[in-house]
Amino acid sequence: MIWLNGALHEGPTIPLDATDRGLLLADGVFETLVVFHGRPFCLAEHLARLGAGARLLGFEAPLRRAEEGLLAMAAKAPEDGAVLRLTVTRGPGPRGLLPPENPTPTIMVTMAPFNPALVFQPVSMVTVGTRRNEYSPLSRIKSLAYMDQTLALKEAREAGADEALMLNTAGRPVCSSAANIFVVVKDEVLTPPVGEGVLAGITRARFLSVADLGGLKVVERPLTAIDIARASEIFLTNSVRFFQPVSTVDEKELDQNAPVAKIALDLLRDLAERECMGPVPIASLQ
Amino acid sequence: MIWLNGALHEGPTIPLDATDRGLLLADGVFETLVVFHGRPFCLAEHLARLGAGARLLGFEAPLRRAEEGLLAMAAKAPEDGAVLRLTVTRGPGPRGLLPPENPTPTIMVTMAPFNPALVFQPVSMVTVGTRRNEYSPLSRIKSLAYMDQTLALKEAREAGADEALMLNTAGRPVCSSAANIFVVVKDEVLTPPVGEGVLAGITRARFLSVADLGGLKVVERPLTAIDIARASEIFLTNSVRFFQPVSTVDEKELDQNAPVAKIALDLLRDLAERECMGPVPIASLQ
Repeated sequence: MIWLNGALHEGPTIPLDATDRGLLLADGVFETLVVFHGRPFCLAEHLARLGAGARLLGFEAPLRRAEEGLLAMAAKAPEDGAVLRLTVTRGPGPRGLLPPENPTPTIMVTMAPFNPALVFQPVSMVTVGTRRNEYSPLSRIKSLAYMDQTLALKEAREAGADEALMLNTAGRPVCSSAANIFVVVKDEVLTPPVGEGVLAGITRARFLSVADLGGLKVVERPLTAIDIARASEIFLTNSVRFFQPVSTVDEKELDQNAPVAKIALDLLRDLAERECMGPVPIASLQ
Repeated sequence: MIWLNGALHEGPTIPLDATDRGLLLADGVFETLVVFHGRPFCLAEHLARLGAGARLLGFEAPLRRAEEGLLAMAAKAPEDGAVLRLTVTRGPGPRGLLPPENPTPTIMVTMAPFNPALVFQPVSMVTVGTRRNEYSPLSRIKSLAYMDQTLALKEAREAGADEALMLNTAGRPVCSSAANIFVVVKDEVLTPPVGEGVLAGITRARFLSVADLGGLKVVERPLTAIDIARASEIFLTNSVRFFQPVSTVDEKELDQNAPVAKIALDLLRDLAERECMGPVPIASLQ
């Protein structure tokens, strides 16, 4: 089932305008989010980020209709969870790079199973050659242009690792192929600021707002290779896998117990159970 | 009329798999080329570049079928020219970044009018903030991820100029939003090598292979701001507008007569008339 511009389609085929700028130029944004008990988790944050991303590209995303699509699909999701993907393109346009002044955005929502086994699954990482471009505004939004990340992941898999550690063009660590990174050094939990070429992750934001981590301070600042070398714990965050401890980065081994990530996951699970009004299939780790 | 996977569609709507990775992740490549008298110009070069781009992304583009689509659409083009766009995506795939092992690429060919008024139309340029990422393999291919270029063009238009001068992340000039750049300094015609974050343009390649430019040497080397400052002539090349003289870059004014670009355009027009077996609607400038 696919929700497209207000109508449900059996799929997999949908009717799309051949001049849709999402297909031709990656002119669009997307979100992936989980849904439990028919309720999308962090719905307001995802819609706000999508709207901000579209505005950066220069168009207004129809957020009410997008929400309508998400809720229509969420109502069809199994009780124990699903992953929704919301895609909003600028819609059809004339030939050339410049967009139409009054675009008619395309809104699509698709659904996939939620896999609880991926939550807190440890990942090995390797530094890859493909870099995030902090000189592009796109590095800070979730645009449809996702092939740098895909090439980075492919590179990591070919090197025998689960995930890519991506550097920005200044050579500083910024993220994995599809997750934010947090590095615990002494009494600080560090993560690079968005200006480093980092997506403003929703789980990242929730974690940054955490008040009590047992004396640890969560700090946004550029990371260096020295931070990685000194780290006692490294973990990844995103909206579908929540927290994942990093087992190795290149030659360095890390504490897979990931005590900070464990505290964070428990806090997030509590939030999810409150927001989605029911139990979620994520085991407590403490 | 749209040619899609072997069938002609009235358009504008086409049937597309909702999991097509071209739409979801910009996982694909494209070409734009001109056609005169039903014959696509530089057809072999465009197909070869498309194939190389797809291989870099990790899949084989079905080049024979792509050619079939181009020729089918070229046969419907007006005698005095049209622009074809060939889009090849990796096709449908499962959720996530990693592509299917045996993809079924989507091939689409669309047609637009050829506008001879754009050939040799002078352009004013302004240096923009969005930069080309020479640390990404994508910077060297014509992938569907075209929003950095679109944002760069938008920035230039907002600054009152026709075109963007894009720098790479090292701050060196590399291209416009959709064209290669050539800079004439003394007896050399300079253009940055592909490793600088530059698309391997077809017109660029044709120009690089030119033997006789009246004592001038065509040289591939990284450009600096000093080259721009010293230039007696700057021009842009692409496959649809061929050559365009640059009238200004930021505060600097240039010779719009563009004597080197004029020689090059005449050579290219001769090539086009031979390959397409008939006159082309581009006036001789000499």
